[in-house]
Amino acid sequence: MSLRYLSARLAQQIDDELMSAAGAFSLDQLMELAGLACAQTLAKVYGAEKYNRVLVCCGPGNQGGDGLVAARHLCKSPALFGYKPTIYMPKPGSKDIYQRLHTQCKNMSIPTLGEGEESLRTALKSSDVILDAIFGFSFKGPIRAPFDSALPMLSASGLPIVSVDIPSGWDVEASNDAGFGLNPDVLVSLTAPKEGVRTFRGQHFLGGRFVPRTLEEKFGLNLPIYPGYEQIVDITEATQKL
Amino acid sequence: MSLRYLSARLAQQIDDELMSAAGAFSLDQLMELAGLACAQTLAKVYGAEKYNRVLVCCGPGNQGGDGLVAARHLCKSPALFGYKPTIYMPKPGSKDIYQRLHTQCKNMSIPTLGEGEESLRTALKSSDVILDAIFGFSFKGPIRAPFDSALPMLSASGLPIVSVDIPSGWDVEASNDAGFGLNPDVLVSLTAPKEGVRTFRGQHFLGGRFVPRTLEEKFGLNLPIYPGYEQIVDITEATQKL
Repeated sequence: MSLRYLSARLAQQIDDELMSAAGAFSLDQLMELAGLACAQTLAKVYGAEKYNRVLVCCGPGNQGGDGLVAARHLCKSPALFGYKPTIYMPKPGSKDIYQRLHTQCKNMSIPTLGEGEESLRTALKSSDVILDAIFGFSFKGPIRAPFDSALPMLSASGLPIVSVDIPSGWDVEASNDAGFGLNPDVLVSLTAPKEGVRTFRGQHFLGGRFVPRTLEEKFGLNLPIYPGYEQIVDITEATQKL
Repeated sequence: MSLRYLSARLAQQIDDELMSAAGAFSLDQLMELAGLACAQTLAKVYGAEKYNRVLVCCGPGNQGGDGLVAARHLCKSPALFGYKPTIYMPKPGSKDIYQRLHTQCKNMSIPTLGEGEESLRTALKSSDVILDAIFGFSFKGPIRAPFDSALPMLSASGLPIVSVDIPSGWDVEASNDAGFGLNPDVLVSLTAPKEGVRTFRGQHFLGGRFVPRTLEEKFGLNLPIYPGYEQIVDITEATQKL
């Protein structure tokens, strides 16, 4: 039995069930655990000593929220991971939770880039690694401004990229067939990998350690066993066999 | 510089600041991270193979909520920690979040004990370890029913006990001077240890990896550096030196 890959519709259905009155999860809870898994993945692969300056790129949807949570966990403070994150967030989300998560980041003294290509260009020159939380599983092309010019700049930087759930610019089901997407070194899938990342051949982690057995069985996810009490599991080998 | 121990008033003030409009944290977020740290502490010390059956004892306040979050993370499911938790919760909290967290546990098929001493007595006979999330830092004696008879039963069981923040029955500032409290083997302090646990001599962890540097400095917490991307840090040595 192998890991199930999810269509965009199925990924949305699982999220909806988790957050329904019956599922009883709040977006705050799920986003906190998802963002923590993203921060842990980056920290596992790119240690804070060598890769201290993290450019956290956030889109306007829930995945941008995951990015803001990750930025907070990553930052430098005795209780946190010890990185120096900077937020690139040209289109802030409108949800209340998005504003609160951004306030939490500002309270951690995490800077947010100003608008315009030039500030992104400058920031890329003083970054060691990129966390890509721009587009998630509800992304539908085409890529609109300013992301249409930002994605090629991220790619051209040559920096290592950790993508969340689906590399930005990839179609959630049809991969990077259009060729506009990022080519991350590391991917952290949330809950279960999406159809579009079947062709991904980098280091692949799974996060989102909150799926109830009932949902796991209902959707035949065939999730792997996570090690000990870690919030992420390396599924590189399992997914490259396919 | 050594770790600061908090009075009940100061612990409340830090929580209030975190959750103020300026701090912007929601109770859902903080409770999720706190409960996860509790589950991780238990899993670190008492492995799931030998200590599979966990009796999670929840009080009616926020600490009971931490216990419910921990029970969920501990439970058996491919995505979770692989234990078989049972909830003892004779006085369910009235807050909406408490109800939601309990629903999440029911969705994970985690049983909740019925009322009465007999069901607790029976459950203790088929448990391997106790997670004590009954009273937190807002506890003021005297201990009321049914906890006045439950605490001696937990002690008499001889099972290993992991207490959250302050062992139940201890005064938050005056330790176990009255002698009514549990004597846990393991303690997980949240945010920073409380005055009352200065005399605790078991294995001591710190969780609550979310404190901003500004609060850390304002209150002179002198928090230790957490290892890597773990959510808990062993402070046994640091606290036993005092």
